Amino acid sequence: MKKVAVIMGSDSDWPVVKAACAQLDEFGVPYEAHILSAHRTPAAAAEFARNARKNGFGVIVCAAGMAAHLAGAFAGNSTLPVIGIPLKGGTMDGLDALLATVQMPSGIPVATVAINGAKNAAVLAAQILAVSDEALAAKLDAAREAMSRQIAQKEAKLQEELG
Amino acid sequence: MKKVAVIMGSDSDWPVVKAACAQLDEFGVPYEAHILSAHRTPAAAAEFARNARKNGFGVIVCAAGMAAHLAGAFAGNSTLPVIGIPLKGGTMDGLDALLATVQMPSGIPVATVAINGAKNAAVLAAQILAVSDEALAAKLDAAREAMSRQIAQKEAKLQEELG
Amino acid sequence: MKKVAVIMGSDSDWPVVKAACAQLDEFGVPYEAHILSAHRTPAAAAEFARNARKNGFGVIVCAAGMAAHLAGAFAGNSTLPVIGIPLKGGTMDGLDALLATVQMPSGIPVATVAINGAKNAAVLAAQILAVSDEALAAKLDAAREAMSRQIAQKEAKLQEELG
Amino acid sequence: MKKVAVIMGSDSDWPVVKAACAQLDEFGVPYEAHILSAHRTPAAAAEFARNARKNGFGVIVCAAGMAAHLAGAFAGNSTLPVIGIPLKGGTMDGLDALLATVQMPSGIPVATVAINGAKNAAVLAAQILAVSDEALAAKLDAAREAMSRQIAQKEAKLQEELG
Amino acid sequence: MKKVAVIMGSDSDWPVVKAACAQLDEFGVPYEAHILSAHRTPAAAAEFARNARKNGFGVIVCAAGMAAHLAGAFAGNSTLPVIGIPLKGGTMDGLDALLATVQMPSGIPVATVAINGAKNAAVLAAQILAVSDEALAAKLDAAREAMSRQIAQKEAKLQEELG
Amino acid sequence: MKKVAVIMGSDSDWPVVKAACAQLDEFGVPYEAHILSAHRTPAAAAEFARNARKNGFGVIVCAAGMAAHLAGAFAGNSTLPVIGIPLKGGTMDGLDALLATVQMPSGIPVATVAINGAKNAAVLAAQILAVSDEALAAKLDAAREAMSRQIAQKEAKLQEELG
Amino acid sequence: MKKVAVIMGSDSDWPVVKAACAQLDEFGVPYEAHILSAHRTPAAAAEFARNARKNGFGVIVCAAGMAAHLAGAFAGNSTLPVIGIPLKGGTMDGLDALLATVQMPSGIPVATVAINGAKNAAVLAAQILAVSDEALAAKLDAAREAMSRQIAQKEAKLQEELG
Amino acid sequence: MKKVAVIMGSDSDWPVVKAACAQLDEFGVPYEAHILSAHRTPAAAAEFARNARKNGFGVIVCAAGMAAHLAGAFAGNSTLPVIGIPLKGGTMDGLDALLATVQMPSGIPVATVAINGAKNAAVLAAQILAVSDEALAAKLDAAREAMSRQIAQKEAKLQEELG
Repeated sequence: MKKVAVIMGSDSDWPVVKAACAQLDEFGVPYEAHILSAHRTPAAAAEFARNARKNGFGVIVCAAGMAAHLAGAFAGNSTLPVIGIPLKGGTMDGLDALLATVQMPSGIPVATVAINGAKNAAVLAAQILAVSDEALAAKLDAAREAMSRQIAQKEAKLQEELG
Repeated sequence: MKKVAVIMGSDSDWPVVKAACAQLDEFGVPYEAHILSAHRTPAAAAEFARNARKNGFGVIVCAAGMAAHLAGAFAGNSTLPVIGIPLKGGTMDGLDALLATVQMPSGIPVATVAINGAKNAAVLAAQILAVSDEALAAKLDAAREAMSRQIAQKEAKLQEELG
Repeated sequence: MKKVAVIMGSDSDWPVVKAACAQLDEFGVPYEAHILSAHRTPAAAAEFARNARKNGFGVIVCAAGMAAHLAGAFAGNSTLPVIGIPLKGGTMDGLDALLATVQMPSGIPVATVAINGAKNAAVLAAQILAVSDEALAAKLDAAREAMSRQIAQKEAKLQEELG
Repeated sequence: MKKVAVIMGSDSDWPVVKAACAQLDEFGVPYEAHILSAHRTPAAAAEFARNARKNGFGVIVCAAGMAAHLAGAFAGNSTLPVIGIPLKGGTMDGLDALLATVQMPSGIPVATVAINGAKNAAVLAAQILAVSDEALAAKLDAAREAMSRQIAQKEAKLQEELG
Repeated sequence: MKKVAVIMGSDSDWPVVKAACAQLDEFGVPYEAHILSAHRTPAAAAEFARNARKNGFGVIVCAAGMAAHLAGAFAGNSTLPVIGIPLKGGTMDGLDALLATVQMPSGIPVATVAINGAKNAAVLAAQILAVSDEALAAKLDAAREAMSRQIAQKEAKLQEELG
Repeated sequence: MKKVAVIMGSDSDWPVVKAACAQLDEFGVPYEAHILSAHRTPAAAAEFARNARKNGFGVIVCAAGMAAHLAGAFAGNSTLPVIGIPLKGGTMDGLDALLATVQMPSGIPVATVAINGAKNAAVLAAQILAVSDEALAAKLDAAREAMSRQIAQKEAKLQEELG
Repeated sequence: MKKVAVIMGSDSDWPVVKAACAQLDEFGVPYEAHILSAHRTPAAAAEFARNARKNGFGVIVCAAGMAAHLAGAFAGNSTLPVIGIPLKGGTMDGLDALLATVQMPSGIPVATVAINGAKNAAVLAAQILAVSDEALAAKLDAAREAMSRQIAQKEAKLQEELG
Repeated sequence: MKKVAVIMGSDSDWPVVKAACAQLDEFGVPYEAHILSAHRTPAAAAEFARNARKNGFGVIVCAAGMAAHLAGAFAGNSTLPVIGIPLKGGTMDGLDALLATVQMPSGIPVATVAINGAKNAAVLAAQILAVSDEALAAKLDAAREAMSRQIAQKEAKLQEELG
């Protein structure tokens, strides 16, 4: 299976980003996590992006806050699908990162998930790899059914409490 | 190759959405375009989503405006990657559709592109299919290089004009 | 009297939503509370909505946060009045949920109340049932007068303190 | 059947508001339309609201823009369900009117619909009256089915065009 | 001297509003503080407003949060200058109250100050009364000079610390 | 009677601002209109503000767009009541001007009216002067009653049309 | 004198950006204008930025809309001062570009001017070069005085018209 | 070397602003820090600005919150480059200060950095002085390389932890 690259601009993003890695582990999807910055290590970031496909990556996940350029910088240097996680920072409640991630110009999309949505970025990465991987697709379906059962159990518990 | 489903909630969305189809045509990616509404034909929409994978679809693109639930409704009924295009409506400049599309709850991602970003939704869909399709990946790389050359030509033309 | 259905997408919404139930209890309005998710249990949610009128419900109250589709999903599957409570989440201060709840397309309204306005959703539900129920209308008028008296008492207390 | 009161703050709102009246006509729901202003004729507005229930009204629909107080003023003077239509004005794209209409304090709800959502206000008013009126409920269901068929026809037409 | 009316919609607003009273005390401006609600005691609020001028008030200050209608309700029932203080509530960071206070329709202004700006509302009220009261104007000028000296002292202290 | 100073930052603001002058003319309130810029003629603006009270002005009205500092600059140089009109510019729909006008720091209020609310700025200025001028207060009351009658006439006309 | 680099991401930005060039011409500041894209020609953009100082540039001006990364990409590859012009696009009124330009992470500033503020970007560039260039500083002061005189002339003309 | 003026409107801004001074110390750039208010000491602020160039300053940094006029007031009284730091206050998350700082009118730019971006304001000030100071430019390049190495070290540490 192709690998997922999970990129963050700073080690301070790890507490949010590690939820993506945990979810990939759960699905058995191989990944590498890296700290690379669009602004502080632009050459290294560009090089990683340009070589990602030939290095066995299938999807790139980028997490960044504020004027979040990381996903866009990767998208400009690779034609792999790039998923952007806008991170909530100290001000603006993540709106700055959301708009800086999602409003990409024509021809260079970033697949944007919810603010701080690291788990969903991993689910989306797995869904992308599962397009050509039936076993992974089955795992995704099973996880979805488990989620559904969990809601049903919570509903049952609520009825008991209210009952 | 797997097909892309391009779904819109209303025929009035077609003038924006057809740019996605044009782009898929350009990449030679097979697709079907459908009008299905999360609110007006919820059963038909849910059924389409539930059967999409077994009907040969690899990616679902959904375009909707205002309280844009279409992509979310498809994402809740399929584990295929779902791409959401928030459409600009008569008020709120598309912010309503953007937030209603991107802020999905844990476990059910929607890969959101820019407001009215129909072309980019198609590019993203192609990128997803290209993960396991080298020929398509080559086309994407070629298109990217053409885009790059086009910028270089415009730059040359500007220098001429200024020169 | 017809029942009110109080629906939430997750048990984590209960701390806010239970204020609606408490208010319905106070008015003596029968209700059922359920956990049903537009995205995680879409089929169960749709079925509940489709059968709500014939199962004796008169009003449906839905509470959801982020890309809040729950009220819209119920509104798309029932012609009962659907009241939406946008819930404040971890980011965006509830603006995402407000716009995703209120900006419904033509033909499928959701009666939206304030962000986290669970009590007001219950008052509105009671007002709706009271249109054809004079006893309930009298209770609502009495509650309004009590509220008015309470303000008058606080005013009197303030005058005493300032006086 | 009880009547719907359709209130607007100014005759300049009529081009938007009349869509509510047209929809009520279509459902055969009796209504009265009035121009009453929370700020320019506050006494007349308050009096209308206080007497609305005993004058045979079942629902009040209020449309206003900017610092839209009309629906709130009616809700403060009546325990009938009050539906608010936030109107888009010259600035702020209707966000001012939306927040001024929906963010009502505890105990005094306004059932808010989309910005400029006059038609949906009428649908919601009809849904409220239909809670105790099976014939009207049947009309609403029929209208919903017609809407669904209309989408299906547009879908068929699109397939023809693409086919 | 004419009195200032300081009106709040709820006793829970007092912790913010009392800063206005403290400032008026400092300037020796007579005032009355009252709890009156646009939505819960609309008749009492309207009556107070209608009689305010003849009862010796020169300025009305109204503080309210969320869909803040209080200042507008007073402005609609009096031609005295009405100052609105938008209060920050649990969501929206006060933007809802700001827009609901300031965006008044033509002919009925509300003099709006900053979110939670109770002290400034009192300063503005004093400025209004000082238009025809030279002694009060002199007090305002003295207070402004004191403020200026305070900045100069802080500047001197900073230079010492840095020096 | 004291004069009103109507200040604008640029002659391009005149089409909006002249509505303030027209309203003052209607009330027979004397005024002067001036073009003075907080950024382009700061010394002249400050001097005008510092001398305004002794030059016979009772109220200062300032209109400015974008990072609207004009009202604040006047408020920092005078203890007369300063009314701010935030002007809608080419972007941001006037939100920039509104926040830059209303969010003044402690001690230096600006009485802010609606975006482009020139007429209301004039009404507010007249209300301020009328605090100590019974004849002007009577004019304001008469204008309010005329406004009320106008609504009543429009209501009558609507009833005729609908009737 | 060092040169100013005026960079735009697309030739479609030229109608706005050329105002910067016109202003630089007026001040006699040498400049080069180029089309380089952070996303479509990232390598060329990075190379230009890395060599800018040694190629005789003193300031870099970057104009971009939507998820405006251009200024940030230059700032990440050069320690020259980088000025960002957020461009208004088809949606979001330029707020997306403003936040994507200004909210830069620690260590990598972008000197951001108003939305579409091309002329001001040029003035700022000239101000930067004038720090060590007295002749240019004199030109800036002269231009400022001319601006001030222009306001005074408009004021005189207004007085004539009103007089 | 020319000095940097670091201006704040209140001593309460010092906890944020001192990061700018610390950064300037690190680069060996001389500076003065002052408390001067656009609204409370406008004459002193204007005088400081008008004399700044001849007093040996090369750049002015201004930090202010809410209706942040400080940077604009300095920019209107000097043709030195003025850097604005919008400060986050009690409401609006700094959006008020950002728009009041950045949206300057034509001819009077303010070089705006991120909300609370004091460190970046200092970096930008140093970049401006370094345009004509090779030694300082070398320090900036060294700092940038150190930053880059720091990211590389964090990346290495992460690989170790994950490895």
